[in-house]
Amino acid sequence: MQIPIDWTSWIEVDTNSDFSIQNIPFGIFSTPNKSLRIGVAIGDKIIDLSVLSENGLITINKDTLISNSLNAFIGLGKSTTNKVRYEIAALLEKNNSTLKTHKCNSDAIIQQVDATMHLPVKIGDYTDFYSSKEHATNVGIMFRDPANALLPNWKYLPVGYHGRSSSIVVSGASLHRPKGQTKPVETEPPVFGPSKRFDFELEVAFIIGKSTALGDSITTDQAESHIFGLVLFNDLSARDIQNWEYVPLGPFLAKNFGSVISPWVVTIEALEMFRTAGEIQDPKVLPYLEYSGDKNYDINLEVIIQPEGGKENIVCQSNFKYMYWNMCQQLAHHTVNGCNVNIGDMMASGTISGKESNSFGSMLELAWKGTKPITLQDGTTRVFLNDGDTNILRGHGLKNGVRIGFGENITKVLPSKV
Amino acid sequence: MQIPIDWTSWIEVDTNSDFSIQNIPFGIFSTPNKSLRIGVAIGDKIIDLSVLSENGLITINKDTLISNSLNAFIGLGKSTTNKVRYEIAALLEKNNSTLKTHKCNSDAIIQQVDATMHLPVKIGDYTDFYSSKEHATNVGIMFRDPANALLPNWKYLPVGYHGRSSSIVVSGASLHRPKGQTKPVETEPPVFGPSKRFDFELEVAFIIGKSTALGDSITTDQAESHIFGLVLFNDLSARDIQNWEYVPLGPFLAKNFGSVISPWVVTIEALEMFRTAGEIQDPKVLPYLEYSGDKNYDINLEVIIQPEGGKENIVCQSNFKYMYWNMCQQLAHHTVNGCNVNIGDMMASGTISGKESNSFGSMLELAWKGTKPITLQDGTTRVFLNDGDTNILRGHGLKNGVRIGFGENITKVLPSKV
Repeated sequence: MQIPIDWTSWIEVDTNSDFSIQNIPFGIFSTPNKSLRIGVAIGDKIIDLSVLSENGLITINKDTLISNSLNAFIGLGKSTTNKVRYEIAALLEKNNSTLKTHKCNSDAIIQQVDATMHLPVKIGDYTDFYSSKEHATNVGIMFRDPANALLPNWKYLPVGYHGRSSSIVVSGASLHRPKGQTKPVETEPPVFGPSKRFDFELEVAFIIGKSTALGDSITTDQAESHIFGLVLFNDLSARDIQNWEYVPLGPFLAKNFGSVISPWVVTIEALEMFRTAGEIQDPKVLPYLEYSGDKNYDINLEVIIQPEGGKENIVCQSNFKYMYWNMCQQLAHHTVNGCNVNIGDMMASGTISGKESNSFGSMLELAWKGTKPITLQDGTTRVFLNDGDTNILRGHGLKNGVRIGFGENITKVLPSKV
Repeated sequence: MQIPIDWTSWIEVDTNSDFSIQNIPFGIFSTPNKSLRIGVAIGDKIIDLSVLSENGLITINKDTLISNSLNAFIGLGKSTTNKVRYEIAALLEKNNSTLKTHKCNSDAIIQQVDATMHLPVKIGDYTDFYSSKEHATNVGIMFRDPANALLPNWKYLPVGYHGRSSSIVVSGASLHRPKGQTKPVETEPPVFGPSKRFDFELEVAFIIGKSTALGDSITTDQAESHIFGLVLFNDLSARDIQNWEYVPLGPFLAKNFGSVISPWVVTIEALEMFRTAGEIQDPKVLPYLEYSGDKNYDINLEVIIQPEGGKENIVCQSNFKYMYWNMCQQLAHHTVNGCNVNIGDMMASGTISGKESNSFGSMLELAWKGTKPITLQDGTTRVFLNDGDTNILRGHGLKNGVRIGFGENITKVLPSKV
């Protein structure tokens, strides 16, 4: 049930807005006088679904819509959630005057600037993959062996690891620079203090839309039916803590001090028109990782650093289509051993880097381990994020004049707590 | 508010029972005619707390007690949960006839064999540590370098990693042997199929009893006030899958097909008398990991393999006191970067191995990577677990004639799904 690409809305939508009538992403918001509920974004407005429901304008019970998470709504299944999404778009379409002239109009339509966005889902488990070949190669060159940058398993399976879900917060977060153990001098014992290498990682995460039972597996063909939607994910990383702690069991305190997601969940159906082919995988993958059809998505991604009181600087321009392992392969791999997934679980892509040096998705790569500082418009340089910097991720697809995007994912870096 | 060690109960408690009147562990159970609720174990009985509450015998609201998890109960705080635990013990004490002669008696007291136990807590995040020096050393000798078995960071920080909480299930589980990628021949590509190295890991896990906010840290002095109680944890592991996947980001599918916990949560207060000193840590730890007082616990642990229709074979006898890093250090480390914890979060010890070869907490170590098969009473041998094997963990402390334990943690290994 795609929203026709020739639809436009009677609500004004700027051509640079990520929230066209073809998008209709879901989120959780509140306003000063009313607590958390489900809304969709269009242009610079939010449509309050609980008001639409109260007034009989959409076929879904209000109780599911007044909630602090999308989980119960997602649990109704795609046949329902896609129908509701279409109904909302139809109400917003320029030839439909039902909502436009309805008495609930002023209650139902809220300015985004007047609302507070909240974490859209209750996240049970969070997994982070490592699925960009360019990122894995860059890291391998810097920290291991340039001649054998990719580890032996990398092209055979989508490497992933479990992360911390408690510390995933929504865009607009202010996070203190983490403290921890680092080992600045190889021959000396470790020291304790604020991280000196606070980094971002540009990622896209998908949210599970249909649960499985322990013991069951999801095939690559079934995978999309288990994906509700996507968000931008900033996998903030303390590189110096990571370097000292991660062998042999992986990143831990280097990551779990906070990760930030964008507030609007863009449905996988909304991204349909941006499908594109992935890189041909060589060596051939094992049968459970084979897939058919286009499973990558052409979504422009960018990362901005904005110094305190200063201008925005685009430091990275990448694309979600650069993924070597696609989401269907990730989910098939994750569950091939019978691991169960639940609605609201989040699975992130890993840092998305392209081939060009300005498309690398982390400061670690952009400034090449501190050796190539990035100069900002104000003349200052960065090798990692500074205290006071605001770090912004953006992402959108653009095709046939239709723009569908994620909005912003904003994090401000605060100094370490004393 | 310790339960006096000279108390005995009017309910018969076998001297070999883990559930003395000094224990009073909490769990979630159901019976054929009544759904999930909170109970405590004593001897071979369960006391239904909702019935005690209904009849005004304990000072806690029934609504908190009719629940599918202990989380809300734990959330009342230690001052309340410890008072309730004491009130229950007082009702069971042999000189107290209130419950013994009460009309609700037959409703309140249930045979454990007539009840089904459920997962005691809703687990938000699960972390696994790696805190037994002997285990880390054994693994280092087998897989890396015998001369440098412990990695450089091991004695400076309690190494840990995030695990999967969705697949943690309660004792009595039957789990299919997981399938996955392995690389049996170094020079050949990986293959797909059932794991050939299905292993147990003997661990103890603690459950968070008090949440923190993102950005806050817990000191070693504060740590115990954040620990509600402990369970036995079987961190089932597919060694062949692990070996191929785990570099560089840690174990993933080798672990997340299922982990099993014991159903009764033994409060940290119940274990007070088993406190003992840990090993002196050399090199000296960084200040945030320093602690005072005895933070290890003298808890006997054992692992049993019982072949289909056969006898129990004790294959490992270990002790929780062998931990190099204690729980307070683990929690201080986990939160020193501001990572938040929530009620119900679970943190496991890592495999607990002692110095003697019969105290190693995994088949990997007991059969030394397959080179020293273990012979069972029926003459068969094991290097890992076989299909049809039942794997049991047990644990208890014993002092001054008082026994306090965890009961059993039982897992049956089923063949791989076709």
